[in-house]
Amino acid sequence: MSNLTESLIKMEKHNSIFEQQIRKLDVPICKVFGNMKSLSPVEFSETGETLSTKDTAQVNESFKNCVKASGNKVLAATGTNKNPLSKKRVAVLFSGGPAPGGHNVVAGLYKILGKENTLLGVKAGPKGLLEGDLFEITAADIDSIMNTGGFDFLGSDRTKIKSEEQFLSVKKTCLNHKLDAIVVIGGDDSNTNAAILAEYLSSDIKEDGSGVQVIGVPKTIDGDLQIGDLLPISFGFDTATKIYSELVGNILQDTPSSRKYWHFVKLMGRSASHVALEVALQTKPAVALISEEVSEKKMSLAEIVESIAKVVIERSNKGINHGVVLVPEGIIEFIPEMTSLIEELNEKIAVYEKEMHNLSGVEKREFIYSKLTAQHAQLMATLPDYIEDMLLAERDSHGNLQVSLIPTEQLLIDMVKSSIKATDPKVPFKTLNHFFGYEGRCGAPSLFDAAYCLNLGLTAASLILSGKTGYMASICDLNSGGKPVAIPLTGLLNIERRHGKDEMVIEKALAKTDSEAFKYFAERRNIWAKEDLFASPGPRQLWGPASKQTPVTVALNRKYSNLDFKIGE
Amino acid sequence: MSNLTESLIKMEKHNSIFEQQIRKLDVPICKVFGNMKSLSPVEFSETGETLSTKDTAQVNESFKNCVKASGNKVLAATGTNKNPLSKKRVAVLFSGGPAPGGHNVVAGLYKILGKENTLLGVKAGPKGLLEGDLFEITAADIDSIMNTGGFDFLGSDRTKIKSEEQFLSVKKTCLNHKLDAIVVIGGDDSNTNAAILAEYLSSDIKEDGSGVQVIGVPKTIDGDLQIGDLLPISFGFDTATKIYSELVGNILQDTPSSRKYWHFVKLMGRSASHVALEVALQTKPAVALISEEVSEKKMSLAEIVESIAKVVIERSNKGINHGVVLVPEGIIEFIPEMTSLIEELNEKIAVYEKEMHNLSGVEKREFIYSKLTAQHAQLMATLPDYIEDMLLAERDSHGNLQVSLIPTEQLLIDMVKSSIKATDPKVPFKTLNHFFGYEGRCGAPSLFDAAYCLNLGLTAASLILSGKTGYMASICDLNSGGKPVAIPLTGLLNIERRHGKDEMVIEKALAKTDSEAFKYFAERRNIWAKEDLFASPGPRQLWGPASKQTPVTVALNRKYSNLDFKIGE
Repeated sequence: MSNLTESLIKMEKHNSIFEQQIRKLDVPICKVFGNMKSLSPVEFSETGETLSTKDTAQVNESFKNCVKASGNKVLAATGTNKNPLSKKRVAVLFSGGPAPGGHNVVAGLYKILGKENTLLGVKAGPKGLLEGDLFEITAADIDSIMNTGGFDFLGSDRTKIKSEEQFLSVKKTCLNHKLDAIVVIGGDDSNTNAAILAEYLSSDIKEDGSGVQVIGVPKTIDGDLQIGDLLPISFGFDTATKIYSELVGNILQDTPSSRKYWHFVKLMGRSASHVALEVALQTKPAVALISEEVSEKKMSLAEIVESIAKVVIERSNKGINHGVVLVPEGIIEFIPEMTSLIEELNEKIAVYEKEMHNLSGVEKREFIYSKLTAQHAQLMATLPDYIEDMLLAERDSHGNLQVSLIPTEQLLIDMVKSSIKATDPKVPFKTLNHFFGYEGRCGAPSLFDAAYCLNLGLTAASLILSGKTGYMASICDLNSGGKPVAIPLTGLLNIERRHGKDEMVIEKALAKTDSEAFKYFAERRNIWAKEDLFASPGPRQLWGPASKQTPVTVALNRKYSNLDFKIGE
Repeated sequence: MSNLTESLIKMEKHNSIFEQQIRKLDVPICKVFGNMKSLSPVEFSETGETLSTKDTAQVNESFKNCVKASGNKVLAATGTNKNPLSKKRVAVLFSGGPAPGGHNVVAGLYKILGKENTLLGVKAGPKGLLEGDLFEITAADIDSIMNTGGFDFLGSDRTKIKSEEQFLSVKKTCLNHKLDAIVVIGGDDSNTNAAILAEYLSSDIKEDGSGVQVIGVPKTIDGDLQIGDLLPISFGFDTATKIYSELVGNILQDTPSSRKYWHFVKLMGRSASHVALEVALQTKPAVALISEEVSEKKMSLAEIVESIAKVVIERSNKGINHGVVLVPEGIIEFIPEMTSLIEELNEKIAVYEKEMHNLSGVEKREFIYSKLTAQHAQLMATLPDYIEDMLLAERDSHGNLQVSLIPTEQLLIDMVKSSIKATDPKVPFKTLNHFFGYEGRCGAPSLFDAAYCLNLGLTAASLILSGKTGYMASICDLNSGGKPVAIPLTGLLNIERRHGKDEMVIEKALAKTDSEAFKYFAERRNIWAKEDLFASPGPRQLWGPASKQTPVTVALNRKYSNLDFKIGE
């Protein structure tokens, strides 16, 4: 075997040259924790800020223990905790879709818990907590996962802990593994779950009558878990949007090089358009749709199509027959007439299930046209056949259409094509489409996420060693050193109607059209539509002069004076 | 306006933080050129190596002037050219699809030509040469394109210069712009074109009876232009495969994190599987198909499908219900039975055009089944309906099916699904598919491509200032300082049957199953199939300890002892 093949074999299993190097990379730490060689847990004090929502009175009734303890007050780190708790057994789990940086949260927990305490990993998410599938995390584990992407160290799943039986299973796991605390790394739903768990586990769990602490850590590439200055952004958003922005930047760079394509790019991000807005601000494409704006302005599908066609034609008149259109994954659900059409279809299909069962595609369409309100029949007629077929396809177990399966980018391409053909058939309109999603969830974290996550872990562990429960860890003031804070989960709960009943949940943060980020976008987009002013943000750098960048939406919304992030400075 | 919004506006038009920084990045230079602050053209001497192909005798007849001048001998740089030609007017153009690093070739040309000569950019590729669309390139232009991705500085197109009329247009452009030399940056076909142009322009072009020099530069992300040790790789291949490898690595990292998906990833690269092989070597997926092997082993579609299904089932038996399958873009054309089916379909559709014209999809299929040989009818019956419809769809102007439009990754998913359902229906097989192509053609060059391209430009300009014509510039010995060489284009020409007539062309370099890279892959792939041994190469780094990496296939095939590239060391 040659030296080269020998070293190639050594690169297998997470040991690429890059992975070997990033493990050794020091990431910045908020000064209050000390430095990488000597880290200490911090203690927390109440800030003046008390959180509430429209439903706080009712929430307080349901979460008596947690609210009694926290008073829904925000805490901030004030200095080293000189008398931290010890001999704590802490379990950590990932919940929901993966996001870059998760491994660093685990590393941060481990580095504060130290040898005085035990950190246990829960395998495969909430399901592992129910089944008691835990193992002790070692120093060698931490060395190997440091700064790497993915959730594969523990795995994850989407189980929601809701039933009494499930709560009893969690209790059993707590007892079997002698747990003192659980850290839930997850999105809005998982942190809602953490709040419920914190209340349920607040006392009478262990033999001595004490409870098990629960701390949440805000994760999601979608960016829909953010709380003003307190939680500037969920982790993973920065890396995912930097990955998508590189790709969109590369494609933008391709357009005036090959001079013939319009690329329609659908971007992951569930309902909210944070991802699309961030990528637009980083890359400056000809068109970027923002779902929340579509909904607010009650735009019709035809209006959206016309707005894109107009840009295509105007650019073509100037000799530019290329461009990029960004489409947020969830846009269909924000077009009022589409949601109302889908609702009527859901109803009609439920009513006429038997009659429609044996009809062919064409027959089904004809049948349903006769049953729809005139307005909806008219809208339906403007859609391409394959979309009509999808809209009439099988419903899920709740009788709903899986809207996410609709190929929105192709629908828009086809409708814009028809529109251009009708208005100005000479305008060239060659298209390609893309969907960027899975490639962004597990990339190695950007330096921003690597640092943010490590500090989130340090904060979460510090909260545990201060005896706190029912809080979400956060780092704010990212442009001025970084400040560890603790957000009382109960202070975030709203009552929402879900699956036919009222539930207390953390509200998903949608993009706001009155935010600084949206307003800046709205100011520039017409200029970007007219001529190529795009930029290529390039691959995220872990070393060198281009490595320290805050997401643009975060910097604008938090009114930072520049894009540098300054944790530890 | 805030400081932040002001700086965001300054980042428009190729001025992201990354783009601002890479412009300032020094890239390594072969010592023979001096250093970045003081660059000198080099002179060339004959090496002992003479190139020939099976058709050299015939080629020599058609390329009398060039062969007479070069003797088909390879040249190597020997030292500074102390008496370079001057007052040369040199035109440079991009030809074909974009590839990362092209801008640095232009920068390299400019840096050697200096103020004593003039560099002209040809707009929009060969078409611009025919139309005489040229402009003078300035020092400010070079500063702004340095190390950036894309071909947008000049644009490109796919026009082939073949007809007498086109040659006369080129001659006219040479005269109008007083050109002394043309540099063609392109792939195998474009360099074939450069050879023909070099011969045509070798004398009697300018008023004094002299000719116009033509130098080729080897570009293509597909990697199918490589010539043993002389031309280790075409430029752009490294960056494109690093971009795809990051994405595939991210997806691999996602698989054990979410624990439920098989991802089928189609990779750009036209016919050859160099890209798929390189990405496989960098990421170590469960399965990677290599077209050239399929062809050599005469594998049937069913055999390919079974080989994948076997891996899926074996992994599932061990509890691994996820994985990644890499599929080269051109594989269909390498499956003997598929090409023979498509050939028969092309013939039959031509014969029965009228009869089939008004038939529906189902009727068409029934009709054609009765006309096909039994073997082909049987194969056709195993294909999903949508593929059958595609195979019967409209032909191009030559009566051929556009094979590239067949969604191979979806075809494989559907057929593997059927196969698993038949063998072991309990095996979970949830799938997602991807196509990575356009996002890799215009990314900012890796440090490898940035350096390689700059040195290619320095070499090409040096050849011009030495009065050479009909050569392709290359840099070899990338692991030991880098050596500028000149490859006589005529020494590469073979006779191939194209569009029904013999043409002298540079042969496309396919991946070889007896190459070191393939042999290493073949040795490891069964191990990668059985368990997760993948690695994530991460985003390409322009700074820091992970920035200097040669493509793995190049290092293996050239028997380098490691992956470090050492231009200038």
